[in-house]
Amino acid sequence: MKKIGIGIIGLGNIGSRLYKEIISKKKDIGLKTNTNINIVAISAKNLNKKRNFKVKKNIFYKNPLDITKKSNVNIVIELIGKSDGISKKIVERSLKNKKHVITANKALISKHGDYLTSIAEKNKVNLEFEAAVGGGIPVLRTIKEGLATNKILKVYGILNGTCNYILTEMESTKDSFKSVLKKAQNLGYAEPSNPKLDLNGYDAMAKIRILSSLAFNKKISNKKVLMEGIEDIETKDIDIANQLNLRIKLLGITEVINNKLFERVHPCLVKKDTYIANVNGVMNAVILDGDPVGESVLQGEGAGPGPTSSALMSDLLSILRGNIKFPFGIPSSKRKKVFSYDQNQNFNSLYMRFEVKDKPGVLSQITKQLAKYKISIARLIQIPDSKRKTASIIIITHKSKELYSSKCLKSFKSNKNVLKNPILIRLF
Amino acid sequence: MKKIGIGIIGLGNIGSRLYKEIISKKKDIGLKTNTNINIVAISAKNLNKKRNFKVKKNIFYKNPLDITKKSNVNIVIELIGKSDGISKKIVERSLKNKKHVITANKALISKHGDYLTSIAEKNKVNLEFEAAVGGGIPVLRTIKEGLATNKILKVYGILNGTCNYILTEMESTKDSFKSVLKKAQNLGYAEPSNPKLDLNGYDAMAKIRILSSLAFNKKISNKKVLMEGIEDIETKDIDIANQLNLRIKLLGITEVINNKLFERVHPCLVKKDTYIANVNGVMNAVILDGDPVGESVLQGEGAGPGPTSSALMSDLLSILRGNIKFPFGIPSSKRKKVFSYDQNQNFNSLYMRFEVKDKPGVLSQITKQLAKYKISIARLIQIPDSKRKTASIIIITHKSKELYSSKCLKSFKSNKNVLKNPILIRLF
Repeated sequence: MKKIGIGIIGLGNIGSRLYKEIISKKKDIGLKTNTNINIVAISAKNLNKKRNFKVKKNIFYKNPLDITKKSNVNIVIELIGKSDGISKKIVERSLKNKKHVITANKALISKHGDYLTSIAEKNKVNLEFEAAVGGGIPVLRTIKEGLATNKILKVYGILNGTCNYILTEMESTKDSFKSVLKKAQNLGYAEPSNPKLDLNGYDAMAKIRILSSLAFNKKISNKKVLMEGIEDIETKDIDIANQLNLRIKLLGITEVINNKLFERVHPCLVKKDTYIANVNGVMNAVILDGDPVGESVLQGEGAGPGPTSSALMSDLLSILRGNIKFPFGIPSSKRKKVFSYDQNQNFNSLYMRFEVKDKPGVLSQITKQLAKYKISIARLIQIPDSKRKTASIIIITHKSKELYSSKCLKSFKSNKNVLKNPILIRLF
Repeated sequence: MKKIGIGIIGLGNIGSRLYKEIISKKKDIGLKTNTNINIVAISAKNLNKKRNFKVKKNIFYKNPLDITKKSNVNIVIELIGKSDGISKKIVERSLKNKKHVITANKALISKHGDYLTSIAEKNKVNLEFEAAVGGGIPVLRTIKEGLATNKILKVYGILNGTCNYILTEMESTKDSFKSVLKKAQNLGYAEPSNPKLDLNGYDAMAKIRILSSLAFNKKISNKKVLMEGIEDIETKDIDIANQLNLRIKLLGITEVINNKLFERVHPCLVKKDTYIANVNGVMNAVILDGDPVGESVLQGEGAGPGPTSSALMSDLLSILRGNIKFPFGIPSSKRKKVFSYDQNQNFNSLYMRFEVKDKPGVLSQITKQLAKYKISIARLIQIPDSKRKTASIIIITHKSKELYSSKCLKSFKSNKNVLKNPILIRLF
């Protein structure tokens, strides 16, 4: 049995769970991979933080970079997070020192994945990041192995459990975004101090960039693309969607159109009887459209210590089984650079909500403006609020060009009858 | 680049598709695995059958067993089917001659999988059978790799596309089982000559046996277990289920209860708003309940040349990447023998439908008999057919013991007021 030393850097909820998981599954892993694994080094910001297991002080390193140099460490597991700073250094140095690396860090991989991959390939070690996308759902492994020779045409899904939980709760409780966010924070579904990166679409975007590269055998794109979060969604929008037999979901979508990459993250209105509309709460789901396999769906818990450590363990086993794999499935040198699709040229049906003064002529101002930008109306609903002498005007449009619709909405800024920035949600 | 020779035995729909797939993906596969693959041997029942590609006569073998001896063949792909006879011989001899084997044959693997696995392990070659379960869904690979260290507690799902298509069509068209079956046969979703193995649950059962062994690290069970198909389901049952906000699905289920294996396949009534109730048409879906990952769902097209060849290709890549894996994830010697759970001790809520003569006293005969077998009624619906002077009596029971309910239903055989065998469907 080959002796393998593991270093774990970061002992928060996930690191702690993984630590215990590795110890309890040691025998099972030995059986499956013919190895004798041991945790030989750990590091965390605070040695004395209360944890539900005893930290062995003799393997604790105050400076995590020391672990990247230890000769008895074969695999480094980085669980600190953030795209730059210490976590990048840890991964970089570990790979250069010919250690295999496992990370759950989507910000790091989506930003520096190409660079880190080239170091891993040069040093003939693994760089694994299954836990970066889809929590416990082994979606990266499925693309790399289970669907290995398929031509993947499109990938989309619900990639952020925090947003999906908030939207689900807003619908079922009718509570406001703010109060549901607070609830999510109390339950540990949203970060207590700074939940912004989940809510504004950044987290889902990082995952989409990783999925794209893997699915389409391309370099990771760093172009600024369409990214909108759920912060502006109100219960009003959810209610109206409901009446229209629609539901609001934050989707990440990536596809190749005429050899150009079209990645985006934004709230979408989906029909209630579709599969994706019924993925609720903190669940994640990824839908892959491939040839010859057809449509494949993967669903599971998208975050939390359990699912995440399941993904980390699958990376560990992949390394222990002993074959070095290209982090993105094919050699770096063969992964093409990618041009971006001009999102302004895209056509979409739209949901628009205007909050306006309830007085004659306002509706005609709006419809006139829409006509000017070639946006044709499929459906119009006006809901007056007689107390405040305001009204909500909801418009569902026929397919309209992104360029025109964004210009059109901007044009209402100077209109004093329109009381706040109109809400726009794209139909999926 | 290592030169690898492939032999394909069986050139029906699936074999033909795979043949073309391998040729068109040769370059991509070379890139991913650093190998140079070539189809160097083929065999089929009929050389001259019309196919949509040209069969090279110089690599055609009349006797498929000759292929298992060829020194330039490294991988044999068996696509004939059936659990015994020539397909078993092909796989057996190929493994003994140190050829890797890929097969889509669930009947073979569910019956002789343990034996064939031991030969594969002894000869240090791969035996891969991803296409045997779930069509294009890489569910076996997901259990073996993506969820490798999870303790799997339960696996269930829709594993037979033919049955699921028929049930879906019966609901949407209100056509009878017979006429929908004919439609399914015309569309190629059911075998034209003998669709029995799909309809009576045998096919789903074979898949459940394979899933069980893999999920629970056990030997394949060959005990006779609860297996019922959909042949007796009538549109009447589907309509009534509909009224009760339920839907009928043929499910395969396997779990370990008190260290005993409980495998079964039978029609189930599932709530309409559940995930599994909304997997329609020829789609397959597998739900895995694991620790620490939680619930994972995999859905995709369950049959047909496209999805099946996607699964076969993933097996091919797994072999080409070069690491020999245990066919069932761990060494044969470590896979435990398994005791079966006594299905008679199981408790289930039941749907029962009695077709009776519409005359006084019949209902009381039925309810009296139920009481005798300790079956308590949760809901009763009587639908009279005044023309024929008959009635349908539908009973939903509280949880009842399997032993009693089967005895109870048998007891109606001698009752002349009960016009045919009562229908029983278990609630899930």
